[in-house]
Amino acid sequence: MSQRRYTNEQLDRLLRPRSVAVVGASDRPGALGATLLNNLVQYFAGTIYPVNPKRDELLGLKVWHDVADLPDGIDCAVLAIPRAFVLPAVRDLAARGCGAVVIYSAGFSEAGEAGEAEQRELADIAAAHGMVIEGPNCLGATNYVDRVPLSFVETNMQVPPAGTRSVGIASQSGALAAVLATTLHPRGCHVSTSVSTGNEAALGVEDVIDWLVDDPATHVISLYVESVRRPAAFMAAAARARTAGKPVVLLHPGKSSRARESAATHTGAMAGDHQLMRAKLERLGIIFADTLEELGDITEIALRCPSLPGVNMAVLGESGALRGLAFDIAEDLGLDLVDLNDANSPALRAALPDFVPVSNPADITAAGLAEPEIYTRVLSALLADERVGSVVAAIIQSDPVTSRIKFPHIIRAAGGNVAGKPLIFAGVDAGADVPPEYVADLRAAGIPWFPSTERAYRAIARLADLSRRDLTDRTRPPIALPDLGGVRGMVPEYRAKALLRGAGIAFPSGQFAASAAEAVLAAEAIGYPVVMKAQSAALGHKSDAGGVILHLRDAGAVEQAFARIFDNVGAYDAAIVLDGVLVEAMGRMGTEMIVGARSDPEWGPVVLAGFGGVTAEILGDVTLFTPDMDQAAVHGGLLQLKQAAILRGYRGAPALDVAALAALIVRVGQVMTGNPAIREIDLNPVIIYPEGEGVMPLDALMLTD
Amino acid sequence: MSQRRYTNEQLDRLLRPRSVAVVGASDRPGALGATLLNNLVQYFAGTIYPVNPKRDELLGLKVWHDVADLPDGIDCAVLAIPRAFVLPAVRDLAARGCGAVVIYSAGFSEAGEAGEAEQRELADIAAAHGMVIEGPNCLGATNYVDRVPLSFVETNMQVPPAGTRSVGIASQSGALAAVLATTLHPRGCHVSTSVSTGNEAALGVEDVIDWLVDDPATHVISLYVESVRRPAAFMAAAARARTAGKPVVLLHPGKSSRARESAATHTGAMAGDHQLMRAKLERLGIIFADTLEELGDITEIALRCPSLPGVNMAVLGESGALRGLAFDIAEDLGLDLVDLNDANSPALRAALPDFVPVSNPADITAAGLAEPEIYTRVLSALLADERVGSVVAAIIQSDPVTSRIKFPHIIRAAGGNVAGKPLIFAGVDAGADVPPEYVADLRAAGIPWFPSTERAYRAIARLADLSRRDLTDRTRPPIALPDLGGVRGMVPEYRAKALLRGAGIAFPSGQFAASAAEAVLAAEAIGYPVVMKAQSAALGHKSDAGGVILHLRDAGAVEQAFARIFDNVGAYDAAIVLDGVLVEAMGRMGTEMIVGARSDPEWGPVVLAGFGGVTAEILGDVTLFTPDMDQAAVHGGLLQLKQAAILRGYRGAPALDVAALAALIVRVGQVMTGNPAIREIDLNPVIIYPEGEGVMPLDALMLTD
Repeated sequence: MSQRRYTNEQLDRLLRPRSVAVVGASDRPGALGATLLNNLVQYFAGTIYPVNPKRDELLGLKVWHDVADLPDGIDCAVLAIPRAFVLPAVRDLAARGCGAVVIYSAGFSEAGEAGEAEQRELADIAAAHGMVIEGPNCLGATNYVDRVPLSFVETNMQVPPAGTRSVGIASQSGALAAVLATTLHPRGCHVSTSVSTGNEAALGVEDVIDWLVDDPATHVISLYVESVRRPAAFMAAAARARTAGKPVVLLHPGKSSRARESAATHTGAMAGDHQLMRAKLERLGIIFADTLEELGDITEIALRCPSLPGVNMAVLGESGALRGLAFDIAEDLGLDLVDLNDANSPALRAALPDFVPVSNPADITAAGLAEPEIYTRVLSALLADERVGSVVAAIIQSDPVTSRIKFPHIIRAAGGNVAGKPLIFAGVDAGADVPPEYVADLRAAGIPWFPSTERAYRAIARLADLSRRDLTDRTRPPIALPDLGGVRGMVPEYRAKALLRGAGIAFPSGQFAASAAEAVLAAEAIGYPVVMKAQSAALGHKSDAGGVILHLRDAGAVEQAFARIFDNVGAYDAAIVLDGVLVEAMGRMGTEMIVGARSDPEWGPVVLAGFGGVTAEILGDVTLFTPDMDQAAVHGGLLQLKQAAILRGYRGAPALDVAALAALIVRVGQVMTGNPAIREIDLNPVIIYPEGEGVMPLDALMLTD
Repeated sequence: MSQRRYTNEQLDRLLRPRSVAVVGASDRPGALGATLLNNLVQYFAGTIYPVNPKRDELLGLKVWHDVADLPDGIDCAVLAIPRAFVLPAVRDLAARGCGAVVIYSAGFSEAGEAGEAEQRELADIAAAHGMVIEGPNCLGATNYVDRVPLSFVETNMQVPPAGTRSVGIASQSGALAAVLATTLHPRGCHVSTSVSTGNEAALGVEDVIDWLVDDPATHVISLYVESVRRPAAFMAAAARARTAGKPVVLLHPGKSSRARESAATHTGAMAGDHQLMRAKLERLGIIFADTLEELGDITEIALRCPSLPGVNMAVLGESGALRGLAFDIAEDLGLDLVDLNDANSPALRAALPDFVPVSNPADITAAGLAEPEIYTRVLSALLADERVGSVVAAIIQSDPVTSRIKFPHIIRAAGGNVAGKPLIFAGVDAGADVPPEYVADLRAAGIPWFPSTERAYRAIARLADLSRRDLTDRTRPPIALPDLGGVRGMVPEYRAKALLRGAGIAFPSGQFAASAAEAVLAAEAIGYPVVMKAQSAALGHKSDAGGVILHLRDAGAVEQAFARIFDNVGAYDAAIVLDGVLVEAMGRMGTEMIVGARSDPEWGPVVLAGFGGVTAEILGDVTLFTPDMDQAAVHGGLLQLKQAAILRGYRGAPALDVAALAALIVRVGQVMTGNPAIREIDLNPVIIYPEGEGVMPLDALMLTD
């Protein structure tokens, strides 16, 4: 199921070119074509073809006067020219077999209809010629391993030393790509290749991910994405990264509505639904960063600690004051500070001075100043402890003298870290005068150095969240609804229920009735009391229209109610023609949940479930599941709802049948995968009963293509 | 209402001593008494009295052999001696008129009964002699202005230049005080005086606050407090700081239960109720930091920006990508990115290049590189804009060349900042190679320099929260309940309601009945249907005992119910003797809220209010009010509840009578202040009806001393 638009060989023509043309080459300081040419002359080992109609020579290189003069088959051309000249140049280059084009200019899809049309033409040329087009409105690309600087900002070519784990960057914002590299390099984190995709006329972030997955110099992939334009391809690339064991970290603005609007104006593409995207991509192992700071922090840990941290964290600290703060943050972030004490931790007991009780965070006081071996002993014991998934050394650095005492003994602990667990150094006094060589030594030993515990905890929490999830694809067989064939558009309740019964989903016993007499017969067959509900594809909100009448206890009541429903709905909207009514047994009372499903044409189906009712709606106490999750995973997800205490049986109330709810959710997922024509299903409310007594959806709506 | 334990003159003997004795002076490297003596010799201009039984001279100073040999009236003695020698030395020093003692040794209240007894004795000596005792289990104090280093760690005496705004630090943890100074000094933030209070045998953080309020060298006060030992004095000191215009920032671990437990073991004092403390102290203008990083960040802004930021923030940025991220964070933090656009902002329109639309965050793109005056123009326009309360410049620093272009033009904007609004520089690429002199120039211009926008936004949000609150004391007259006199302990519903009716709080019409016949008479008088409820001070949970029967529609039902209630309660607990029953009109249905009040013997009363019912209990959707808040402030607070949408009228439902609920809350506060004997009041549920229809508490419980 390859979703790839480009082969690695095609992408190599952009990212590992043997020849590069600089269209708009210049020597005017500050000109894009000048900085680019300088970058290339300084670092690039292949052939450079400067193009400038008015010059014959630049920096000692022969200059071509026109794109049309260039030899055929140049790997890559970078266009540092005004927008108006871009399209003709791209046409020419495509005709000459040029493999890749980088377009810096803005003014395409983000700038109105004319620009959109031009961008579509760029896409067409790319498709027709198998040409890689990066941009428009991008900052270019830099391959730090092969020394290929295709950027118009002055490049500091920090080549990763051989064997260094490095991060590949793909970003829809050139500024963000540059900023991320700027923050990673001084931390001693190396970048393999960084690509800014801009408006993505052709080359998308997902294409870059695919190339980075196969790039031996890339070990972690960090992304800034405002809008996933090809979700299926993006998910396929994420799955490949997971198979290759390369963590993918993603920063995606769009939790807030204003951010989504902002993305729309910024890249000329509608931002997707953040929650849906997140549900899908987290299942593929992608780690979401919420801020730029987190993006860098998570990236550093992923680079230095190949074995990712677990939620079960242990902390070595030097002050009781920091213990309380650690508890507060851990609770906020969902990190688990493993319970370690004198009784359950003999190895730690032995490692600590007598007067220091075993605890987590351990508070070794200032004892380490007099006996710095304590750092090595305690950290080694924590790293060796099976209950511990990650270790933070929260250290008061103070000054060079203090650092000299502590750092070497902390580094020594890394030597015995046979399990390869993440060991992270977090200075608690950011700005302390720490000799840089100590920090370098830490990093060389695979220990990330953080300026505060807060940041370390936050990054660990993001990474640990991944370790907590079972990402195995446990998709159950799709369930096709045999009678869905002729169904189109909004499906009324009685038909939706009939269809879903075919998939083994139970509803209250009921019958459709087109007349009062039929309704009475139905009620007699079902047994009183019954509920009666108006049925029409055109009627979305039955209750608002007076189309639902409860507690009907005899034939007379049923007959009256039948007439009243037709009257009510007629008064509500004369245009609605009812098919008839659904007569149903009254469901038992219980806690209201909702289960809904939606199939995005690009992302595929998700199932939403959570607490129903007005309160829950306001609180949004729902969560998304994907059809590849099994009942156990869904069960676990339901127990993460804010009001999960109700499910567990609150204040003497019985525990509720979460297993049955989870089974229903899985079943709805199977229906969604088995029937691509279904756009939405809504089961609202679903009543959940005490354990062993199941769940019962009372209403059902379905929307099909 | 002075709550002060020490006068400034008494505290001066600790913090501005003319003479200091070093008991346990030494020249053994690493010994506390050696480092302390070194610190004093290096910096202290007053007289030093080293004490050591075995030495005659140290560092050229005459050495006393015993505390008993010292002259009378020494201002301050620092005890760098083992625990066992502390108490005798303190007794001797008190007898000789020594004004202050610093005790480093641990092993007192935090170490069991013997230590507790010794610490009590220290407290008694302090009280008897008016002697300041700092510690035990502390790190000493440093007055950076007057060059008084009383610490056993090597002191870097960074004297604040004259006229510099400086922060005073008081901390129950010596480590935290040191860490805070270590992080502030490299940021160019000066510390006036730092005091570590340790176990607080006598001197408490509140005493230090009082002294710092009057210290002309202190402009901001930053605190680390695990446990407020004298709430009334602490509140009085906070109020004095507010009057003096000195912001107080507080880091208090204890949001999580594990943090509270940790504090209990760490300082040997029970941590208070974090929420109650927070409600009280926020009313006094104290700014709460959640992390150490925030403590430093808030302190820096408070130091550099005397006029604190408002929530209405404007951001100058250089990339559309950062816009979306800013929106996400602002929404999380409750910051308001003011809506600025071409139409409503002519001054900004004029300041920006034509192709850049006015927006917030403004995205000036890379235009500032070519025309750096844009930074000055745009920032000046934002600072001059009345709608804007604080301005962040979110800058890509990149490298020295880029910094050289941008920084001076940003600094220039501060020159025209006549309104004195906070202008904060946030680099978006932490670690970028920025020449330190540029950062120093920023700071000299009163512009804090932050390494990330995230941190700047978080600190602004904390400070802005203060600007949003009306902190005026609007306490309404206390309402004394005339009939409370004979009441003791748990007060049953019918008596509680009778008492509270006296304060103008309305309940459903009802009558107490001691017999079935009385109950019928009562019901006839009230009108059917009625509810009947068992009444006894010993019966806490009436419903659980079958002591509540609803919907009684006639005399027969009332008679039966009376008997049934007595039977039910008897079966529930034979020991409970009922006073009788309360017969009441059935309350109309509506949304369930709760209003409760609690009077802490030290902190005073608070009123809790929020959503009732099981769901709300799980979600804890309640908030605390203090009796000095008026109806408008309470109203505003209620609209901050998570489910406030229900109060506003959700989905076509009518808006609810929040004004009436706020009035009830204020009234309950007046009752609490008017009756110090009332420990708790619980009105649960309080039904809230549509606007104009009021609220109705259905149940009432009261607990008195």
